[in-house]
Amino acid sequence: MHYGGDYNPEQWPEEVWAEDVARMREAGVTMVSLGIFAWSRLQPAEGEFDFAWLDRVIDLLHEGGIAVDLATATASPPPWMHEAYPEILPVTADGVTLGPGSRQHYAPSSPIYRRLASELVTALAERYVNHPGVVMWHVNNEYGCHLHEDHSPAAQEAFRAWVEARYGTVEALNEAWGTAFWSQRYTAFSQVRTPAAAPYSHNPGQLLDFKRFTSDMLLECYLMEKEIILAAGATQPITTNFMGPFKPANYPQWAEHMDVVTDDAYPDPDEPESFRDAAFQRDLIRSMKPGVPWLLMEQVTGALNWRPTNAPKAPGQMAALSMQCIGRGADGVLFFQWRQSRAGAEKFHAAMLPHAGTGTRIWREVTALGAELAALPPLPAGTADARVALVMDWESWWAVESPDHPSNMLDYVAVLQRWYRALHRRHVMVDIVPPERVTVSDYSLVLAPALYLLRPEGAAALDAFVADGGHLLAGPFTDVVDERDAFLDGGFLTRLGAALGVSIDDFGALARPGAAGQGEAPLDGPFGTVTGTLLAEEVVLRGAAPVATFVTGRRDGDAALTEHAYGSGVGWYLATVPDEAGADAIAGWALERAGVAPVLAGLPATVEAAQRGNVVTVINHGDSDVTVALAGRDLLAGVQVTTVTLAPYGYALVERL
Amino acid sequence: MHYGGDYNPEQWPEEVWAEDVARMREAGVTMVSLGIFAWSRLQPAEGEFDFAWLDRVIDLLHEGGIAVDLATATASPPPWMHEAYPEILPVTADGVTLGPGSRQHYAPSSPIYRRLASELVTALAERYVNHPGVVMWHVNNEYGCHLHEDHSPAAQEAFRAWVEARYGTVEALNEAWGTAFWSQRYTAFSQVRTPAAAPYSHNPGQLLDFKRFTSDMLLECYLMEKEIILAAGATQPITTNFMGPFKPANYPQWAEHMDVVTDDAYPDPDEPESFRDAAFQRDLIRSMKPGVPWLLMEQVTGALNWRPTNAPKAPGQMAALSMQCIGRGADGVLFFQWRQSRAGAEKFHAAMLPHAGTGTRIWREVTALGAELAALPPLPAGTADARVALVMDWESWWAVESPDHPSNMLDYVAVLQRWYRALHRRHVMVDIVPPERVTVSDYSLVLAPALYLLRPEGAAALDAFVADGGHLLAGPFTDVVDERDAFLDGGFLTRLGAALGVSIDDFGALARPGAAGQGEAPLDGPFGTVTGTLLAEEVVLRGAAPVATFVTGRRDGDAALTEHAYGSGVGWYLATVPDEAGADAIAGWALERAGVAPVLAGLPATVEAAQRGNVVTVINHGDSDVTVALAGRDLLAGVQVTTVTLAPYGYALVERL
Amino acid sequence: MHYGGDYNPEQWPEEVWAEDVARMREAGVTMVSLGIFAWSRLQPAEGEFDFAWLDRVIDLLHEGGIAVDLATATASPPPWMHEAYPEILPVTADGVTLGPGSRQHYAPSSPIYRRLASELVTALAERYVNHPGVVMWHVNNEYGCHLHEDHSPAAQEAFRAWVEARYGTVEALNEAWGTAFWSQRYTAFSQVRTPAAAPYSHNPGQLLDFKRFTSDMLLECYLMEKEIILAAGATQPITTNFMGPFKPANYPQWAEHMDVVTDDAYPDPDEPESFRDAAFQRDLIRSMKPGVPWLLMEQVTGALNWRPTNAPKAPGQMAALSMQCIGRGADGVLFFQWRQSRAGAEKFHAAMLPHAGTGTRIWREVTALGAELAALPPLPAGTADARVALVMDWESWWAVESPDHPSNMLDYVAVLQRWYRALHRRHVMVDIVPPERVTVSDYSLVLAPALYLLRPEGAAALDAFVADGGHLLAGPFTDVVDERDAFLDGGFLTRLGAALGVSIDDFGALARPGAAGQGEAPLDGPFGTVTGTLLAEEVVLRGAAPVATFVTGRRDGDAALTEHAYGSGVGWYLATVPDEAGADAIAGWALERAGVAPVLAGLPATVEAAQRGNVVTVINHGDSDVTVALAGRDLLAGVQVTTVTLAPYGYALVERL
Repeated sequence: MHYGGDYNPEQWPEEVWAEDVARMREAGVTMVSLGIFAWSRLQPAEGEFDFAWLDRVIDLLHEGGIAVDLATATASPPPWMHEAYPEILPVTADGVTLGPGSRQHYAPSSPIYRRLASELVTALAERYVNHPGVVMWHVNNEYGCHLHEDHSPAAQEAFRAWVEARYGTVEALNEAWGTAFWSQRYTAFSQVRTPAAAPYSHNPGQLLDFKRFTSDMLLECYLMEKEIILAAGATQPITTNFMGPFKPANYPQWAEHMDVVTDDAYPDPDEPESFRDAAFQRDLIRSMKPGVPWLLMEQVTGALNWRPTNAPKAPGQMAALSMQCIGRGADGVLFFQWRQSRAGAEKFHAAMLPHAGTGTRIWREVTALGAELAALPPLPAGTADARVALVMDWESWWAVESPDHPSNMLDYVAVLQRWYRALHRRHVMVDIVPPERVTVSDYSLVLAPALYLLRPEGAAALDAFVADGGHLLAGPFTDVVDERDAFLDGGFLTRLGAALGVSIDDFGALARPGAAGQGEAPLDGPFGTVTGTLLAEEVVLRGAAPVATFVTGRRDGDAALTEHAYGSGVGWYLATVPDEAGADAIAGWALERAGVAPVLAGLPATVEAAQRGNVVTVINHGDSDVTVALAGRDLLAGVQVTTVTLAPYGYALVERL
Repeated sequence: MHYGGDYNPEQWPEEVWAEDVARMREAGVTMVSLGIFAWSRLQPAEGEFDFAWLDRVIDLLHEGGIAVDLATATASPPPWMHEAYPEILPVTADGVTLGPGSRQHYAPSSPIYRRLASELVTALAERYVNHPGVVMWHVNNEYGCHLHEDHSPAAQEAFRAWVEARYGTVEALNEAWGTAFWSQRYTAFSQVRTPAAAPYSHNPGQLLDFKRFTSDMLLECYLMEKEIILAAGATQPITTNFMGPFKPANYPQWAEHMDVVTDDAYPDPDEPESFRDAAFQRDLIRSMKPGVPWLLMEQVTGALNWRPTNAPKAPGQMAALSMQCIGRGADGVLFFQWRQSRAGAEKFHAAMLPHAGTGTRIWREVTALGAELAALPPLPAGTADARVALVMDWESWWAVESPDHPSNMLDYVAVLQRWYRALHRRHVMVDIVPPERVTVSDYSLVLAPALYLLRPEGAAALDAFVADGGHLLAGPFTDVVDERDAFLDGGFLTRLGAALGVSIDDFGALARPGAAGQGEAPLDGPFGTVTGTLLAEEVVLRGAAPVATFVTGRRDGDAALTEHAYGSGVGWYLATVPDEAGADAIAGWALERAGVAPVLAGLPATVEAAQRGNVVTVINHGDSDVTVALAGRDLLAGVQVTTVTLAPYGYALVERL
Repeated sequence: MHYGGDYNPEQWPEEVWAEDVARMREAGVTMVSLGIFAWSRLQPAEGEFDFAWLDRVIDLLHEGGIAVDLATATASPPPWMHEAYPEILPVTADGVTLGPGSRQHYAPSSPIYRRLASELVTALAERYVNHPGVVMWHVNNEYGCHLHEDHSPAAQEAFRAWVEARYGTVEALNEAWGTAFWSQRYTAFSQVRTPAAAPYSHNPGQLLDFKRFTSDMLLECYLMEKEIILAAGATQPITTNFMGPFKPANYPQWAEHMDVVTDDAYPDPDEPESFRDAAFQRDLIRSMKPGVPWLLMEQVTGALNWRPTNAPKAPGQMAALSMQCIGRGADGVLFFQWRQSRAGAEKFHAAMLPHAGTGTRIWREVTALGAELAALPPLPAGTADARVALVMDWESWWAVESPDHPSNMLDYVAVLQRWYRALHRRHVMVDIVPPERVTVSDYSLVLAPALYLLRPEGAAALDAFVADGGHLLAGPFTDVVDERDAFLDGGFLTRLGAALGVSIDDFGALARPGAAGQGEAPLDGPFGTVTGTLLAEEVVLRGAAPVATFVTGRRDGDAALTEHAYGSGVGWYLATVPDEAGADAIAGWALERAGVAPVLAGLPATVEAAQRGNVVTVINHGDSDVTVALAGRDLLAGVQVTTVTLAPYGYALVERL
């Protein structure tokens, strides 16, 4: 179990470093992420490097038994760079150049930035690749954070090249983007621009490709650095830190290039259900590399600085959320950052060692957690624990939140999280995967809400899943467009219609809350009467039978949820986005129909249960004590138990017999 | 009766075209608007045209009996143009260049754009002016849509020239704009700029002239194309499509240059009163060219794509709104568009032929409406049907919504629509006209709310209207400034004060909803107690007598509505903006006082009645059946009737005996 | 007593000027501010001046007995200047150049602007310095109004120079700004930029210095003009008009350079407590130059034009607010402006002489007030009237509203005004001063809420105040950072902790209204149970004892208000921002504990009482008559009284025996 945090010794006089190492040992720290924002310190001028201080820090840490996750420091270029090369700066859609003074002020597609980054990484890799203290490589930091797109001249040039590489000919480009609409037909690739400020809505095919391009440019930066490190002879795992459901980077695609997936997560203590959305994020990250434990690379010990209001974590909450990671597949928990800064934009961001010192509650909790983690035995990697898959697809996310849709109020992640929470309240393990990953050998029940864009391979996997005996709950606004964000001949549900036994005539957008018009669509089914939101689609039955019908409103009496026997499986289509209670009721019904069992039965909804191989983790997020019947070895207490009693924010990891 | 829609064959393989014509015949289509966004297809490069495909389309349509409203295709320049001439791109007030990727990405004042547009139109006109299938010319498309102003270098240059042409000397300019205020005195026209980003409020005279300039630049583009088409020998009517109460273009002024006025209208099905605001738009358009039937050039069959949420039209609603146009003077109903797109920003915009095919409700409704329209006999042009005029003036609209007013919450169109709805609920026909159009021979009652800017001719017409026996209900915030947006010597109401018998000391702005302070001003009168909003003016009686007084609040006991006998007429002044119920009550009282009769008496408010010569159209927008006593020939059923029974969204056109 | 307003004769034909002077005499006007926006009239071209008209105006005024406060007219450059020198225009953080057409369209740091301004001021000063009619110099106008920051190339250059002058070496700069964080280490001053658009949060040290720089640039402009006027031999007082709590300009620092402090104030008649916030502004201005009467340079007679809605002042309200100034130390009341404009952005801004003429209520009130002021005897300067100080510090204001704080909802002025209102309701005189001004000889009670940034001198003054016997009520979020916006070693409250006997472990941000999480923190104390907002800090007792404790919520049972005996005084620390009622209760308790007496006891809260030496001013802001026991000479009535009866908006100035 790794334990530690970002360590930024360059912010402190050298005499503090020894104290740092001593305190780290006191806290049980095993590893630190070093030098993430040290570029200006490592390279005071182009062609000039200063590694002496870093040598001393790494040696000091190594002597103290603290392993180093060495950062490549390329996330925040130094001031000399924008002075010498202002063309590396990114530009917004409105043409505003984003300057220095914070971080992320570089165009990822800039050849100059890439050259300078590669020079730094080459020097770093060659110097430290064989240092015994370096156990991992931390490439850049939070790629794309605060810079979700770039329209700089470098980006224009790169986008043109990317588009040409993808399509080969302008004819293919015109066909893919449907440029006959609004007179956008290109006659040369040199005419292509990023979708920057325009009088009105952009071409959705171009928008979608610009999302792909943006993710690809960031990934190219990562791969460039990874290759440099490998070329220097590195044997350590190489990674960069993810940020959960982060729209600009197609993480499932990226994960193939990570030796270990790492994640930064900051649930809001003010949100009563944030522990469930945190669990969603853990499972999303866990699902990206099945069977390979992941790392929580960043969380905060207490209060943050960047929300409008930043509540402190409650006593015990930090440890509970840390154990949530362990229970859901992590082999380590780290923080931003080791020592709270005195200055800078994040000085109010809590740290392992608070500015107010070691007499604080935070320090006590940090050292207690370190001791607990140190006492844990190795845990199983945890494969095939989930029998339910929730389909999440980045390309579909990009496309479904494009403008000019029947309802422009649909928030893809919010829809997924609503379903996830319903499953989490029922203590069911869930994988969160792209459609291509769905197989009946892995899953009994698959949910595919708002899977607007569907690739042929994904469509085939979902069709085969049903045909082979699975239970698929799809819709609404699913299988609408192809990978170009274009309709397919034959209407909607052209690929999944066979399995689902329905087609769609109209999406029936509902009015947004507070506006005039029908805003909700109640439906009646075997799970009672629940409320639909956003859409009340007009479903045409083509073999399926209604399970639930809309009651009152525009679609009164029409099918709201349908069922279709297909092969040896069942295809359900839901024509609306249920509200929280509705998702809960429908999920319960679907789990029962699909025969999916919870990790533990009979728990209150505020107690979570996660399975990792034969280890069950239970955590009490409620405000009173709970006793859970769970037989096995309590790994923290080191004793056999038949029940565990959990105080608020209490937890237990029990190895089942 | 024209029936059809925009037809964009360039979006489809040529083999689809024949099917299109066959389906059009099935649907009763008589005319399509062709090639609106075909520039990039018609002209692949500067100096190079490709008309062969268009020849084939027009011939095919003509052979199929479908007439062509031929577009000049200049609304969306092709990609080669912005590559070769980036200076044609428009610029926002903040200096953001609006690039390609959507539509309308050209500066209307750009000499390069105009040259290139004129080359295309010349080629088109010369090629098709004598084609028997072409029955109308559709110049550009929705001028100004999505580009409400332009601050490009071309616009700067053109604005300077426009200002110099208007004022001749800088002395006249300085006088007109009041540049002594805030040290803005010009010494050369070269110093003039458009009112782009500045630290604080702009000169209102300059703002107003910039609105005039913007409308004029668009109109110049239209006139340029019209003259080219005429020069080619065209005998067909020439027009461009309006968008109802569209602020950037002074349509009443433009209408003089239209052979037929055409309109695009998209009422929101989620808004319960949108059929009334739709009627307002029909009457506004109808009033622009009295006695000449207009065309509905664009509406949608079902759901749109560009609102936050886009509800489908209810069953029957599309036909009911179509008949509303016919009943209010239209001689045709067209849609955007014929066949729903597969790709592009408007693929979710419903069409006559839906993406889901001919098995849909939309297709059934489209074909049924086509059949009905085909069966209608020619209808009278419908002149002098209205005895009530609602004054609407674009220049006053521009000025009254300028910043730095007593209340900056006044929405001119919302105020007019509120009065219109009150009259519509009472089944009274209304013309919507500039003040210069008001005469006692045409009207018995004239409403002039918020007629802030008044030209001398308009003031004279309103004064004469009262003197000659009319009933004028003016105010509040009426006759405040001249055409320069400057006060006149002598206070306020300097021109209408004689007829109204009052002057104004203070405008008494009320607080906006939810803010501290007095937000409403109740008034008591012969119509009961109603609520005033926005303003509670301090009226000084100069011959008039109070009809209603404010009760409670700042003006408690002061005159709120006054009456003045003047010549053989009556001048009423209302010192506040009544709320919906207040406008209803006051309108009822004023109609009675002015002796204005409804089209039909005794109808519920959700049934609308319109008169077009001797034909009365009744439409049921309510949700239950209504029987209307109405004797004459039912033109759709082809029988004599004494009553008609209307289902929800049912309608009848009855030729009165 | 000065009485008058801005006078802009250049807006009117010369024949109006004589009428103006006659009307001014009728209204009791004694002084006008002349030529504030006359640059384009005074200087039609570079190097060319036209003073003849100004000569005539000044002579005419002088002959009429109206003194002149002569403006330097540099606030709004003429159009020829931006044509010749577009580089004088300011630029926003997003890179938008702010052009002409309104006012304030110049970069304060522009050498060209400064040169041209100095040429104008030199010419003006040399011409009028000895004119007997000129009694005061009005430099520029409302420095910084509408232009709160500038990122033009001139500003970039000036900021680099300013930073270099402040820090001398890049090492010192790096240390001060903490540039080790996020890799911002400079290696040359040429790399420094203003904190313009960037991907994420800026360096807070840089943000703070940019605020200092902005204030300094404006002050440099003022000092440049002042020196020119002095060099020309001026003996009149020189000033520029302040705008109360105006964030961009550090007025307490500026006040040293004013011969008399003048202020522009526009309380909103729609806000029921705006008279109290107006009093806050009077006392803030009064406190800037103790013992020297100030001038109200601008207020409005009736309705404004620049708020969303602009209610007129109620009858009598203008006079009542004028007397509030007199009662709180002003020796004059002036208006924007003398005669209401006919054109321009402020034509709806009410004036002394309304557009509707002399038959109006406003004109009657203006003349009545002029007569009253003329009858007043000279009033005492009014020193040492307040025994309570409210600490307000511009640098702390800038820093405390920097982003990335525990709660980013804190509005510094709103917090101060809340405390001020509590004291005002209790009729207690308050000085509003920087911390360095606090001494026990001046004050018995000092409030220092949210004094986030504390300089060593301020910290020493507050510490000494308590040690010497004062009562200090500090917190929350006080003594957090030094003048670089950096934490100090040792935690928080490192300087005031000794006097207060506490330290802080966590700031405990509360959720914002309507959001999830704990939004309020009730506390129980000797003043009852009141509500805390924004923060519920975790206080560590280090000698202090709890006076009040939080009840319920996150800090249930913990200290909310502490008391510590220190030297001969008392230090109180409050760990939250009380709501309006809470501030009222706590202020009452603290006044009693500190033994501070009101100006008058037993008054209703809607009657205000102010002390100016031995003159007490009482004003009734309520809506019914009030009789006040107050013995002395009624200075307006000219009689001895023992009580005064005040109608709504009535007032009395009573010289105490």
